[in-house]
Amino acid sequence: MKDMTSTTKNTVSELIQLARKFNCFYLQGIHQGICKPFLVAGHQVGLIRPDVLKHLHRFPEVFRITGKYVELNPAFRDYQQRTSKVAEVLQSLRKENEICALKGWRDECFEVSTPFCHESLLEMDRSAVCLFGIRNYGVSINGYLFHPAKGLCIWLQQRSFTKQTWPGKWDCFVSGGLAVGYGIMETAIKEVAEEASVVGDLAKKLVPAGCVSFYFESERGLFPNTEYVYDLEIPLDFVPQNADGEVETFELLTADECVQRALSPHFKTTSAPVLLDFLIRRGYINPENESNYRHLVELLHVPLQSIYNKSHSDFVSNGDFLENKLNE
Amino acid sequence: MKDMTSTTKNTVSELIQLARKFNCFYLQGIHQGICKPFLVAGHQVGLIRPDVLKHLHRFPEVFRITGKYVELNPAFRDYQQRTSKVAEVLQSLRKENEICALKGWRDECFEVSTPFCHESLLEMDRSAVCLFGIRNYGVSINGYLFHPAKGLCIWLQQRSFTKQTWPGKWDCFVSGGLAVGYGIMETAIKEVAEEASVVGDLAKKLVPAGCVSFYFESERGLFPNTEYVYDLEIPLDFVPQNADGEVETFELLTADECVQRALSPHFKTTSAPVLLDFLIRRGYINPENESNYRHLVELLHVPLQSIYNKSHSDFVSNGDFLENKLNE
Repeated sequence: MKDMTSTTKNTVSELIQLARKFNCFYLQGIHQGICKPFLVAGHQVGLIRPDVLKHLHRFPEVFRITGKYVELNPAFRDYQQRTSKVAEVLQSLRKENEICALKGWRDECFEVSTPFCHESLLEMDRSAVCLFGIRNYGVSINGYLFHPAKGLCIWLQQRSFTKQTWPGKWDCFVSGGLAVGYGIMETAIKEVAEEASVVGDLAKKLVPAGCVSFYFESERGLFPNTEYVYDLEIPLDFVPQNADGEVETFELLTADECVQRALSPHFKTTSAPVLLDFLIRRGYINPENESNYRHLVELLHVPLQSIYNKSHSDFVSNGDFLENKLNE
Repeated sequence: MKDMTSTTKNTVSELIQLARKFNCFYLQGIHQGICKPFLVAGHQVGLIRPDVLKHLHRFPEVFRITGKYVELNPAFRDYQQRTSKVAEVLQSLRKENEICALKGWRDECFEVSTPFCHESLLEMDRSAVCLFGIRNYGVSINGYLFHPAKGLCIWLQQRSFTKQTWPGKWDCFVSGGLAVGYGIMETAIKEVAEEASVVGDLAKKLVPAGCVSFYFESERGLFPNTEYVYDLEIPLDFVPQNADGEVETFELLTADECVQRALSPHFKTTSAPVLLDFLIRRGYINPENESNYRHLVELLHVPLQSIYNKSHSDFVSNGDFLENKLNE
């Protein structure tokens, strides 16, 4: 490949199209001006779309809505009070059954924290996090092996058809959200046991291998997601068995079959970053066969850490103080 | 680690401090307003600092300088003409001996291409690329092994004391810039042979493993760098031997010693991203021992692909057209 540019000119690979799909919100400039920053304790922790905002107007004692931002009532004094006030609103909305995302109520809480110093502010049900565009953390495990005949192979799971989200879609070997009270490695160990019956010495072989970050949007809401990634080399004779009813089946695919599966409509869009990252780290997707390689790598690591950068003072200095006074 | 936040609160790790150092320009908001976008054929391909700009004013037939941007004369018709016109300016400046970066003239050309579709626009001497903030591509190879007693070990090189840049500093096992006419894997193979005498079957074991992107600034100029990363497992009994005089010595370090070396002032700042990426991919730096793990991963993949997003039409629609007319 003497001339680096000749093969890449003007081509947009299928993989980049997939990366654009799971970064649809990021690449649309996070809808500046349409969505409103969501502030808690003076820090931006999320973004709120108009379809969610219209419901929040009915709870002025909890959500203070100005022309430029939405703020959780700053009078709420601590983590507990913020959590319970938000939970009350969410339970009301859930009963009304009008918000799609809340139909998937999980009874599992995710934490909301400040950017940078990660101070815990409140927790809310996992199903509601996407309504506020709150950052979402999970773990994903690549189960792989080197097959003597087929080379690099990867175990994928098909999600149960009864799952709240992405039912029946193909997914990474194992993954799970980071719930309040659980550590990262701890979640990885819990999930491989529950989803694939990986325990004992085999579970000890989990190797942390980085994380992927992307910003997806669907009808349900906003997904600024970070997945902590682990690799697990699976013995040739081990067949994963689901233990929690959340998996329909497992299948061992070659690297090439994995790429095709990820590109198909049967794959969970938000799990593709983990799979692509694995195939890049293992050299299967590489600069010689992927013309948009460096762009692809960037789209697996979008700068979510700095995406929520507003604070209360950004707004009060811009005339909002006056606007609020006039509205009083 | 039950409570994920308790250990991370308000701590800024040494590794994040290092990541801030090699991203000093990115984190300063790429000096918006101080540096001027550099346009070639209507596309932004770089940024120019005031200290460089003052020299370019003397070449109005080559560089068209407006209040908001610098443009390579759009009358230059093709790659060859752009290349030769810029080379003439650079040779003049080089003779005057006033620009630090040009003292390290390399007689090795880097290509300048459009963002996104990667159309080749011109080439210029490697030493000058940082004066225009042009994106810079290289390959870096992690030479590693699993030592029976010491675990994961990594070969580092000390750069020759006669090198133009970073003389005598510690560096990755092998690395090199992507010169015009060479492919990416081809450059990796060339560099491991020249710098470490890795040839034949061993060189065939190079595994592409992603890339790192960061935006550094030094006295010499601006460095929006992307390094294509390769891993190479080195046999326990192989001792790298330099073949091109660019290496002072090689040393095999444990992973822990590598981290300490990277944090020391004796390490080439712009090679730290490759080493940190390797240690993250291999699980040595992980979410349990690095409180700013996800932020660190992001700072190894800053969005250079979208950082140069101006085009000529952004400026002419903003009143520059009028300004140019008035200046005529």
